[in-house]
Amino acid sequence: MAVNLTPPDPAKLLPIAGVELGCAEAGIRKAGRRDLMLMRLAPGSRAAGVFTQNAFAAAPVQLCRRRLAAGGDIRALIVNAGNANCGTGEAGIRAAEVICAAVARSIDCAPERVLPFSTGVILEPLPVARIEAAVPRCVAALDATNWTEAAATIMTTDTVPKAASRTVQIRSRQIGVTGIAKGVGMLAPNMATMLAFIATDAAVHHESLQSLTREIADLSFNRVTVDGDTSTNDSFVLIATGHAGNPEIARGDADYAPLKHAILEVAQTLAQAVARDGEGATKFITIRVGGAATEDEAVRVAKSIAHSPLVKTALFASDPNVGRLIMAIGNAGIADFDTSRVELWLGDVKVIEHGARAVSYREEQGARMMQPAEIEIRVALGRGSAATTVWTCDLSYDYVKINAEYRT
Amino acid sequence: MAVNLTPPDPAKLLPIAGVELGCAEAGIRKAGRRDLMLMRLAPGSRAAGVFTQNAFAAAPVQLCRRRLAAGGDIRALIVNAGNANCGTGEAGIRAAEVICAAVARSIDCAPERVLPFSTGVILEPLPVARIEAAVPRCVAALDATNWTEAAATIMTTDTVPKAASRTVQIRSRQIGVTGIAKGVGMLAPNMATMLAFIATDAAVHHESLQSLTREIADLSFNRVTVDGDTSTNDSFVLIATGHAGNPEIARGDADYAPLKHAILEVAQTLAQAVARDGEGATKFITIRVGGAATEDEAVRVAKSIAHSPLVKTALFASDPNVGRLIMAIGNAGIADFDTSRVELWLGDVKVIEHGARAVSYREEQGARMMQPAEIEIRVALGRGSAATTVWTCDLSYDYVKINAEYRT
Repeated sequence: MAVNLTPPDPAKLLPIAGVELGCAEAGIRKAGRRDLMLMRLAPGSRAAGVFTQNAFAAAPVQLCRRRLAAGGDIRALIVNAGNANCGTGEAGIRAAEVICAAVARSIDCAPERVLPFSTGVILEPLPVARIEAAVPRCVAALDATNWTEAAATIMTTDTVPKAASRTVQIRSRQIGVTGIAKGVGMLAPNMATMLAFIATDAAVHHESLQSLTREIADLSFNRVTVDGDTSTNDSFVLIATGHAGNPEIARGDADYAPLKHAILEVAQTLAQAVARDGEGATKFITIRVGGAATEDEAVRVAKSIAHSPLVKTALFASDPNVGRLIMAIGNAGIADFDTSRVELWLGDVKVIEHGARAVSYREEQGARMMQPAEIEIRVALGRGSAATTVWTCDLSYDYVKINAEYRT
Repeated sequence: MAVNLTPPDPAKLLPIAGVELGCAEAGIRKAGRRDLMLMRLAPGSRAAGVFTQNAFAAAPVQLCRRRLAAGGDIRALIVNAGNANCGTGEAGIRAAEVICAAVARSIDCAPERVLPFSTGVILEPLPVARIEAAVPRCVAALDATNWTEAAATIMTTDTVPKAASRTVQIRSRQIGVTGIAKGVGMLAPNMATMLAFIATDAAVHHESLQSLTREIADLSFNRVTVDGDTSTNDSFVLIATGHAGNPEIARGDADYAPLKHAILEVAQTLAQAVARDGEGATKFITIRVGGAATEDEAVRVAKSIAHSPLVKTALFASDPNVGRLIMAIGNAGIADFDTSRVELWLGDVKVIEHGARAVSYREEQGARMMQPAEIEIRVALGRGSAATTVWTCDLSYDYVKINAEYRT
């Protein structure tokens, strides 16, 4: 069902010096599939993360926050699919600690150097013993070329693994950036997507890595939504192994912008892949809002459109019920909003001008623009010069089907 | 599809002295159904209203606000289904004015004494001539017993007309309250439901009527949600004809509370009917949130649950995927939220304690509680003593079907 999204070509995913990946079948939820992924990082690797704003943050999220705040190198990420380890109280924290300790023993580092991640069903105890038992099999499988397998291992309702790479020349060194992500329901990231991991071999200054992580998230994972429900487990981690041997890059350096650009391209590719593979998606929707007084305002308008079940069902049906778009814009909570300045286009067809139906607009034009699998909605608010882009998908019968039957 | 909702018994709907209703077929959208309703009010009738907070407020909403703000008696309401007269610019305002003028001529009053209401498709010009031509037929049909027919005339995707009556003794006089409403998609009223009209023959002080209207809306129509999309046309009008002959009731009088109670019962019955007949609804859900620091906080938590597509699809599937409930609670945006104090019950089964799965909870209990057509979710936040109740419905295949095919 994913919209114009094919599995990543393993040959095009770059290994990142200092990063190895190993996957195994722990039998967490479903038999016959790998569901545990270990990412081992070389000594000296730095990591920064942004996490869900949901008050019921999962146990692994709480542990990640604590360990990243304490500072120091990160030596491994351990990720399980099938169980979110959320709503599990103190026992959930202990479960995550036990698994990190098992990883630490296996790769010979301190347990605090291991970050845990979980995705899947909420409010069920994590099967710790099965996961612990599978850790050595992950270690045995570690290899720098396992990115595609890692992307497949962390999937839940995803139908296509999501991975991307870019390279960038910095001071005549070739810097690599490779990332993976998974979606694809309970997805309206407020800080990051459900799970996304991007690694570069560049050396990046510690504090700059944290601010870079937030900047990247705000321009990629925080700009995609499937169903408006923010997960309890959203995590995005950016890793810099420093193995490229470049001089450490800090914000403000000339090298910062090109590195950020390469990482942002990977992040946006992954974020768009999440929307393309949204639960039940039959269409990939790009919403561009301009003429806003502030970027926050542009985001609010774009997300009000992207979250509206009525807009999403019309997109699914290829029905140019364009009135629902102005309903959604009007619900964005913009103060002192002169709606008579609003303009809106479907693709290159002008639908709204002066806040009302454009004189030139004909229903058959709208019907034509609603047919393709990729649709662009462009809004001009006439209030200023701030702009944003948000990606989403439609709402189909299959979204209901997938979520009605998720646990069966 | 409506959940435990039968058409109103005309014999149980009380005529309200000073109110007559007449309906006609104007051919606004669909042939062979009445779609225009006139409510004529006796001289001296007062009205107050609350309206949508959507910035793209429809032309009739703008006109209603203006006319109610100007003060004075209201002599008629004219309501059409099938076209929202929204996103129609200045031409839409003129269209509503022309129709009000036609009503005013027919019943011999000033045009400013007529309030217009529209519901239906957004962004299409109102067929003014057809509506004007049908006004005399509405006038010819005026009768005090036409409440059921009026409720049916204003429907769009509603499957059952919504009407209710109550009586209350005030100073040995029998006061009547009768109301009608329509839903049932684009429904997350922020000030009122899409369209609801309640009339009483009590005499009510002008300013108290306005504050009473807002109080009633906040405890009824503003506590129901179907899909989280706030319509451009939401309107709730409360009418007091004064024909019961009671001394005028003002806030603070001993008679205010019993009158408010009767009106609130009608309003809550109508609001619940809107959720019972929500688009595609197969289940009627009552969400009670207590232990909140403020009522606003309780409402935010209840609506976060009620709006969550993941909660709503689980309810549709009778799947006790209770983890989605804590996800929704965690997304309510409550500051300094100690989730370890949260408790939650499905019906009388305790599911969550100390913010995690209750020790006593068994999956089969949850499965049993998810089966009935009426489900109660109760949350205790452990933060204070404020509480609220919100009503909603599930999200089914038919919601997608109805909204994918709405205009066909």
